[in-house]
Amino acid sequence: MKKEEYMDLALTMAEKTIGQTSPNPSVGAVVVKDGRILGIGTHLQAGKAHAEVHALEQAGEDAEGADIYVTLEPCAHHGKTPPCADLIIERKVKKAYIACLDPNPDVAGKGVEKLQKAGIDVEIGIQEARALELNRKFFHFIQRKQPFVTLKAAMTLDGKIATSSGDSKWVTSEQAREDVHYQRSIHDAILVGINTVLQDNPQLTTRLPQGGKNPIRIVLDTHLKINENVHVLNQEAPTWIICGLEADATEFSKQYPHVDIIQMTSKQINLDDVLSLLGERKIQSLYVEGGSAVHRSFIDNRLFQVIHWYIAPKLLGGSDAFTPIGGSSPAFMNEAVSLEVTSLEQIGPDIKVTAHPRKEKV
Amino acid sequence: MKKEEYMDLALTMAEKTIGQTSPNPSVGAVVVKDGRILGIGTHLQAGKAHAEVHALEQAGEDAEGADIYVTLEPCAHHGKTPPCADLIIERKVKKAYIACLDPNPDVAGKGVEKLQKAGIDVEIGIQEARALELNRKFFHFIQRKQPFVTLKAAMTLDGKIATSSGDSKWVTSEQAREDVHYQRSIHDAILVGINTVLQDNPQLTTRLPQGGKNPIRIVLDTHLKINENVHVLNQEAPTWIICGLEADATEFSKQYPHVDIIQMTSKQINLDDVLSLLGERKIQSLYVEGGSAVHRSFIDNRLFQVIHWYIAPKLLGGSDAFTPIGGSSPAFMNEAVSLEVTSLEQIGPDIKVTAHPRKEKV
Repeated sequence: MKKEEYMDLALTMAEKTIGQTSPNPSVGAVVVKDGRILGIGTHLQAGKAHAEVHALEQAGEDAEGADIYVTLEPCAHHGKTPPCADLIIERKVKKAYIACLDPNPDVAGKGVEKLQKAGIDVEIGIQEARALELNRKFFHFIQRKQPFVTLKAAMTLDGKIATSSGDSKWVTSEQAREDVHYQRSIHDAILVGINTVLQDNPQLTTRLPQGGKNPIRIVLDTHLKINENVHVLNQEAPTWIICGLEADATEFSKQYPHVDIIQMTSKQINLDDVLSLLGERKIQSLYVEGGSAVHRSFIDNRLFQVIHWYIAPKLLGGSDAFTPIGGSSPAFMNEAVSLEVTSLEQIGPDIKVTAHPRKEKV
Repeated sequence: MKKEEYMDLALTMAEKTIGQTSPNPSVGAVVVKDGRILGIGTHLQAGKAHAEVHALEQAGEDAEGADIYVTLEPCAHHGKTPPCADLIIERKVKKAYIACLDPNPDVAGKGVEKLQKAGIDVEIGIQEARALELNRKFFHFIQRKQPFVTLKAAMTLDGKIATSSGDSKWVTSEQAREDVHYQRSIHDAILVGINTVLQDNPQLTTRLPQGGKNPIRIVLDTHLKINENVHVLNQEAPTWIICGLEADATEFSKQYPHVDIIQMTSKQINLDDVLSLLGERKIQSLYVEGGSAVHRSFIDNRLFQVIHWYIAPKLLGGSDAFTPIGGSSPAFMNEAVSLEVTSLEQIGPDIKVTAHPRKEKV
């Protein structure tokens, strides 16, 4: 096999663990000598062994003189586990193929430097684009200290998310909704506005045939309008409620001790502040499920990195039906926020459009 | 080459002439003997030679004992040209491969019968699906005596066709708009509502780098609200205006002698009547460009066969922006008109969704 193919294997393994290694990135590693794979590994959970450790353990003494393929630059610092660069040196690996460097400006290149100083040959950049994509959310978080934000909407082909009476069950098919549940499972947190909670009473948990972790449920509720009858106050998953300065958070906390109430220092909720706060709390990825007022805020403030738009092939009709992005329209079409489509797929009968802002806010 | 490949060639030629043979179907033919192509032909214009004639002319005397591949059952009746079945017999062709039968119940099978009676071997159904698709509009027209209706809309990813102020220039890219012009060129007629004429003042002509015929421009204008300043009253293409019983058609006709005014016998315009009238006037294919009230009527009456939905990857926002299908929303999501997506493509930066009703009205 070619070096690209070994890196393929390392990437494929890592891609299957997206979402389960947070706050760590997903990483895969393969140890090869004389065209034989001696060890493979992927990081499975934060606090547990890194990919390189698994792969080198399997290779054992044979690692001496072998090549190692790693999807991300091996760490050079002591975290919850010892530095992988040290282990690679210790096992006398001959050459390291690295798909991409560590995105953290403070440590980028340090792992490579350590390996090179120990006489190990290093080649960087094999399948780099795919490796960057693999940990895109992690890299964004490391660099911006705010979560990577995905906006999700489900609408009819004529742009309606609910009828005039508010009925939205269901816009899309079971297959599309299963994809949404998968997305929930690979995000650290999910965010909705209080109107969505009161109108639709969603559970916001992950319900997949093969299981999947629940994201933290975050509700933007400036005036604490939430009531006891809603699913998000149950204990199936952690819930954080973000309210404004004037809400009576103390009273609420007494009533719902298992709910984390976060009171902002301003009367209105400032989204940029919310994202910074979530960043401090190590939320790397945020899945925003609307409704239309919440989407409008994220879009107006350009505080999103990607959108997942599910479109059901049905025509509802009605100027009074609900639209994915509410508020007032700008006067001119050229004031619309311009996106670039990165993927277009059919999920069951439905369409999924993935797109990102054409010019991202820096 | 295999027989499927010869039929491929016949179909490929015919597909390039879609729209230019109306009111005739598009047809291709290939004459083959001993693995050599002796003649190829496609019907180019109504009243001129059929595909079989071109192909057999090229083959000349060598047609004797050859095979002929035709995308549609050869005609057995005298129209503007003599029956092709007679010519095939006269040239002593050995075998005829036919992709699909004539859809007209009065003549279906008669061409085949004539060939078989003359001792010619006939095989039907090679690449049938593609042949049916090729002349789908023609077949619909022949069977229903109403034009095949395509609804077209261009909207932002959040379902807006214009801002609250009515600005819609432009929703989609130049590439998508070029595709719209191509669609205009292959339809017999294009239809819009009077509001679209007054709001956008479109030309509704075909403007393509390589040229293309203009469709007949049809405006639904119940009360003859149209005014002299609009492009559709120019003489670049024929214009038909359909009005209700109470409009002053006589006065209007005097003023615009080059415009065809069609007055319905009811106060309000009944769409089903309009389509029957267009059918009588040999309009086989109708391209409906909106606006949202016109689309609503076609959809409510289930009077459409396919939709072409262009989606620009941009987010406009605004509950007050214009939506592709106006009027009042039904109360429940399950009252939406269900469609099936038949194609999903990217045209430049934009998305084009082609879909048809899941259960077509019979």
